[in-house]
Amino acid sequence: MSALDPTQTLVELTMAICDIESVSSNEAKLADEIEQVLTTASHLSITRDGNAVVARTNLNRDTRVIIAGHIDTVPVADNLPSKLHHFEREQVIFGRGSVDMKGGIAVMLKLAVELQQPKFDVTWVFYDNEEVAADLNGLGRLSRNHPELLTGEFAVLCEPTSAMVEGGCNGTVRVEVRTVGVKAHSARPWMGKNAIHALAHSLKILNDYQPATITVDGLAYKESLSAVLVSGGIATNVIPDAAVLTVNYRFAPDKSAAEAIAHLEILFKGFEVVVTDQAEGAKPGLNLPVALDFIAAIGAEVRPKYGWTDVARFSAMGIPAVNYGPGDPSLAHADNENVPVGHLVDTEAGLRAWLSH
Amino acid sequence: MSALDPTQTLVELTMAICDIESVSSNEAKLADEIEQVLTTASHLSITRDGNAVVARTNLNRDTRVIIAGHIDTVPVADNLPSKLHHFEREQVIFGRGSVDMKGGIAVMLKLAVELQQPKFDVTWVFYDNEEVAADLNGLGRLSRNHPELLTGEFAVLCEPTSAMVEGGCNGTVRVEVRTVGVKAHSARPWMGKNAIHALAHSLKILNDYQPATITVDGLAYKESLSAVLVSGGIATNVIPDAAVLTVNYRFAPDKSAAEAIAHLEILFKGFEVVVTDQAEGAKPGLNLPVALDFIAAIGAEVRPKYGWTDVARFSAMGIPAVNYGPGDPSLAHADNENVPVGHLVDTEAGLRAWLSH
Repeated sequence: MSALDPTQTLVELTMAICDIESVSSNEAKLADEIEQVLTTASHLSITRDGNAVVARTNLNRDTRVIIAGHIDTVPVADNLPSKLHHFEREQVIFGRGSVDMKGGIAVMLKLAVELQQPKFDVTWVFYDNEEVAADLNGLGRLSRNHPELLTGEFAVLCEPTSAMVEGGCNGTVRVEVRTVGVKAHSARPWMGKNAIHALAHSLKILNDYQPATITVDGLAYKESLSAVLVSGGIATNVIPDAAVLTVNYRFAPDKSAAEAIAHLEILFKGFEVVVTDQAEGAKPGLNLPVALDFIAAIGAEVRPKYGWTDVARFSAMGIPAVNYGPGDPSLAHADNENVPVGHLVDTEAGLRAWLSH
Repeated sequence: MSALDPTQTLVELTMAICDIESVSSNEAKLADEIEQVLTTASHLSITRDGNAVVARTNLNRDTRVIIAGHIDTVPVADNLPSKLHHFEREQVIFGRGSVDMKGGIAVMLKLAVELQQPKFDVTWVFYDNEEVAADLNGLGRLSRNHPELLTGEFAVLCEPTSAMVEGGCNGTVRVEVRTVGVKAHSARPWMGKNAIHALAHSLKILNDYQPATITVDGLAYKESLSAVLVSGGIATNVIPDAAVLTVNYRFAPDKSAAEAIAHLEILFKGFEVVVTDQAEGAKPGLNLPVALDFIAAIGAEVRPKYGWTDVARFSAMGIPAVNYGPGDPSLAHADNENVPVGHLVDTEAGLRAWLSH
């Protein structure tokens, strides 16, 4: 007998899923339970890969969409079992994973079982290890082991967005802006060359920089350019011969990481610029008919996503993707993580309307 | 029988002193030998304090001068016993301490014994622990234990100066210039405030600063203001909420450390400025008759001293002081430390002329 029962209410199902602990790399029990529930639905064909479970309808629809969510959480912080709180105006579920993202998993599981004749063919993806190093990511592993399962014209990731639609995501590049000097005793600095003083112009560039806001597929992506680390100097009596400013550029998905790096190299001309990290952005693809249909059906506000999420993995596979799920993302990973029941109801209704109408 | 014999040549005496190892805190044997030699001179009264030896003439001269040097060295680097090298134009003694400052100690020891009727009363000070933490310094200890021994109108410290006269010394102050921001995710920097960006103006201040050259008692002291350390940031995806720039101000001895700090507080107005280190400078006192007499007798070039030395201790006692000794100071502490015999001869002749004429 499974602990999960899709005939339960969405609140009961969310709490039951929260209460099966599944900190990254310990998702086996929850994956087993999800697989068992999905197997009861004869309209789904199931594939298990590690602790990821993929359930597909095969209705020969013209269009296939992917709806995905990760089943792992960050470590529990004495915030399980989950609790339902009643406030004056709303009910809220407290507990690890309620926001990130077992509320979304509950919505997905309920709809996967109940929607026997969705408007599109649907590939439901429940995957592991999203909260840890990128090379462990279950969605990435699925795309390597079973690329044939991850095909579709549009993807929805049920990450928390406060039940709004967040399209695509900005890319990110980190570079070290390095300066070189000549060591000397600080009593006689004119014998050397000060590498920290030479950083001044790079900080001026950052302060003078006017980050662009770029509209891609109808969404306005706000870019940013920030120093995140600075270091330099050896001792308090030595003129420093090296200094490093680490800069993070968050760039709109109209450009590639390579183009973002070229932009930084021009901006910091005269400095040594060393790339230490890069990740492509993702276009929301909201100009496609399937996406426009999704937005019309959901009826929710559409915003750009600034943080990097797994929508970029879909984007890299050539599949436009959006985030749409219950919970305030700023409460993800918080000890007081909690999801309003209203978000659960709204997103379940939104996805149901889209897949049914 | 002492290993040291002041009737030896200056070269022999310097090498003998170098060959008695006396790394800081292990000066006992050398102090014993020096005390034994000085005790043979009936015109001197001797005081021993730890591993410091003070020898004074008591001739009731109108003027008393102090001639001082430290007997400790930095650790030996396989550069003992000392060796005499003959080059085409000059002889050079290689070995630990030859420059810093056993060449000067040899000159002092020879003159202390030989000059039975110096023009001034002379207090010869041979002290320990100059190369280590300031609170261990033998000259400082003598000034606490025997202030009556450290009186005089003028002091010469036989630190290496390439046989030139280096007067007084710049003071030094270190401050941390601190900025404060507000943490945020670097994907949404507009939610925070970047403390590294806020350092830009402090670096502009440093680059725009025109350090003064200030003439004190006839010597031109070149000031300087340098960043020596910079740090800031927590992680590559977080807008930093704190950054620290450590600045070293080397200031001319026309001003006190307190005045130097006040200058920095005005210069970096708007920043938090925290003093981490300060040491007073020392005026050369070269306008005094006894100093003018010294310079005339020595006949050597007179320059300001930029590095901080124990002349500042004399200055703090109200005694003007200069550095004058054999050896190139840039070779002090070097593995190939070596002193030209010409410097030994010149400084011995210079001091002899001053104390005799």
